[in-house]
Amino acid sequence: MGRPPLVDDPRAEILREAARLFAQKGYAESSLNELAAAMKYSKGAIYNYFASKQEIYDAIIIATLKALYDSAASAVNPDDPAPERLRQFMMAHARCLEANYHAFVTMLVGYSGMANAALKDDALKLRDAHEGLLRQIISEGIADGTFRPVDVAMTGRAVLSLLSWMARWFRPDGPKSGEEIAADYYDLIVKGLA
Amino acid sequence: MGRPPLVDDPRAEILREAARLFAQKGYAESSLNELAAAMKYSKGAIYNYFASKQEIYDAIIIATLKALYDSAASAVNPDDPAPERLRQFMMAHARCLEANYHAFVTMLVGYSGMANAALKDDALKLRDAHEGLLRQIISEGIADGTFRPVDVAMTGRAVLSLLSWMARWFRPDGPKSGEEIAADYYDLIVKGLA
Repeated sequence: MGRPPLVDDPRAEILREAARLFAQKGYAESSLNELAAAMKYSKGAIYNYFASKQEIYDAIIIATLKALYDSAASAVNPDDPAPERLRQFMMAHARCLEANYHAFVTMLVGYSGMANAALKDDALKLRDAHEGLLRQIISEGIADGTFRPVDVAMTGRAVLSLLSWMARWFRPDGPKSGEEIAADYYDLIVKGLA
Repeated sequence: MGRPPLVDDPRAEILREAARLFAQKGYAESSLNELAAAMKYSKGAIYNYFASKQEIYDAIIIATLKALYDSAASAVNPDDPAPERLRQFMMAHARCLEANYHAFVTMLVGYSGMANAALKDDALKLRDAHEGLLRQIISEGIADGTFRPVDVAMTGRAVLSLLSWMARWFRPDGPKSGEEIAADYYDLIVKGLA
């Protein structure tokens, strides 16, 4: 394509830097001027890719949810038993959060801030696909007797709560990696406390 | 004190209405003018109690964390066995979230938005007291053999993650009460999936 190798995906780079800015300052407090200055872009260069700050926000949510679902879907091996697939799902979710930390912090306040109704609908579909994959694993584990007959929706929500709340306390430079934390949570959820 | 009975605590009423506004519109997008209009107060009446929107935000966080710790501390009966105390803790946390739903949504983005450093320090102490109570229950359950020898900090964080994430999906008018959800989570955490 003849693009210079260091900026081979300016759109993704804008989303990454904007997520960092939103996570650190808050969405409302951030401006495209600051984003452009942080990236050493002109504001006009950003407008080549996105029409507004809101459009960038919406694109961050969609890109992150897509990365989350894709990473889980590709990590889960359909031939493995349910507990192993649950472990694969949880590790992939935590890895994705670690790799896209600022985008997950930006997402913490939810999709309610999304302005484009069609994109918001896409976001909910991606979230449902991710949760659906998890519920399928739990259902199959119950069906083949490896899991207790728990409430599937409640259990899926519990697993996603553990992983989602990491955006509030996890630090990429902290003592444990995302995968180590997911492994601890997997162990707790499967074996229980008693 | 001769106060009219319907407005016996205007300060608490301002915090409650402000939390509703912040939860629905976002902190940055909310103004004291809107708050005053929603409460049928003059802006001057609000200034009798708080000097700024930021001061109201800080006060919401402190009041909510204090209510959370107090409700858990008074719900936990020190004479009961550890699993029962864990259940009491989780139910109290969920009840408090349900009763202060908008304040918990306002808190979702964290204490980083707090401007008053002394109050932020108070907030972290209240959070630590709440988590400390939970860790004590888990530690004692491990010591007396009712719980497996799990990592106490990790397990406390898992329990608080389940409860905290409710601010993102729970609806006070939804099909299950906060206590019913906490009871499901308690069952899952204690018995596990396998």
